[in-house]
Amino acid sequence: MNGLPTRLGQQLQFLVEIDHLKSVVRATRNLHNGALENTAEHSWYVALMGLMLAEHANEPVDGARVAQMLLIHDLVEIDAGDHPLHGGHPPADQADKEIAAAVRIFGLLPDEQGQTLHALWHEFEAAESADARFAKAIDRFQPLMANMANGGGSWPQYDVHRAQLEHRVGGIGQGSDALWAVAQRIFDAGQAQGWIKA
Amino acid sequence: MNGLPTRLGQQLQFLVEIDHLKSVVRATRNLHNGALENTAEHSWYVALMGLMLAEHANEPVDGARVAQMLLIHDLVEIDAGDHPLHGGHPPADQADKEIAAAVRIFGLLPDEQGQTLHALWHEFEAAESADARFAKAIDRFQPLMANMANGGGSWPQYDVHRAQLEHRVGGIGQGSDALWAVAQRIFDAGQAQGWIKA
Ligand SMILES: [Ca+2]
Repeated sequence: MNGLPTRLGQQLQFLVEIDHLKSVVRATRNLHNGALENTAEHSWYVALMGLMLAEHANEPVDGARVAQMLLIHDLVEIDAGDHPLHGGHPPADQADKEIAAAVRIFGLLPDEQGQTLHALWHEFEAAESADARFAKAIDRFQPLMANMANGGGSWPQYDVHRAQLEHRVGGIGQGSDALWAVAQRIFDAGQAQGWIKA
Repeated sequence: MNGLPTRLGQQLQFLVEIDHLKSVVRATRNLHNGALENTAEHSWYVALMGLMLAEHANEPVDGARVAQMLLIHDLVEIDAGDHPLHGGHPPADQADKEIAAAVRIFGLLPDEQGQTLHALWHEFEAAESADARFAKAIDRFQPLMANMANGGGSWPQYDVHRAQLEHRVGGIGQGSDALWAVAQRIFDAGQAQGWIKA
């Protein structure tokens, strides 16, 4: 739409663009309807998790800020795609694509607003703060819930061993001992079901 | 999962429950992939709109709080379903269902946390504050974007006239004159396309 005030025009252009996140499909399934989750749904869900569970962070966090971080943490997937934890993609290549995506997508916004969001995304990626470590913990914990509700989800498919899984989602414990304790119970249950190997 | 600490157990039970929002389908289509939007995707999207556009509110608002409100504003649809703006449902009946849904769903949380969220939802519904009026404006504005990207969306289907539309989404102007000015341009364009009747 031409002829809008510049800032509002840029912001609406950014918003039109990010609707693409609804087309990025993840490796995890929804808890109840069994459909593959898309990254927009995922972002809504983890943002609410961050708000609701903030008291369980290892360090004091700002739940509202954690939620903001989680609302935008996967926008780069519009260009870079989802990178399934157990899929074995080359991480270096993925990181390059995500960095370029962040420049393009946050660059649609008015300068200082785009820079703020870009910095928030970088803080999350680098796990540079208590808020970011807790947001990462949430992002790693949520697929455990999804897999347990869906016959182990991608665990049996990728032949996942418990030690691998504990290593890959170890960030949960960096952000929240309480959630890590629940994760251990999930691993026990998944192992008992034969969805996770010893 | 039995035997968790009580608060965390209640919070996780709430989180498991709200995943149902991904199965509530709206009358609007996504901007790019043309699929019907579900309410989880919608909630993510409007939360980010609230954050990004807060400067355009008529009264000073707290963007993070607006985003929180929008993250939870439609949880009641898990029980009450979506109520399309142009669908002609009886509003009284819908309101009763939503009130009961709020009691049930927010009641899953630890008492004071559930009460806080319930109050936030009520504040939104009643448009009782600057934050709520702006959140409502965003919630009304977003489907205009969706319909413009999808051949008028539900407007032609429901034979919508401009005066009806302006009345039904008039809340946009209560929250943001800037967005209401954009809405007017959208109505002009929709009328020129024949999607909205004079
Ligand atoms: Ca994620």
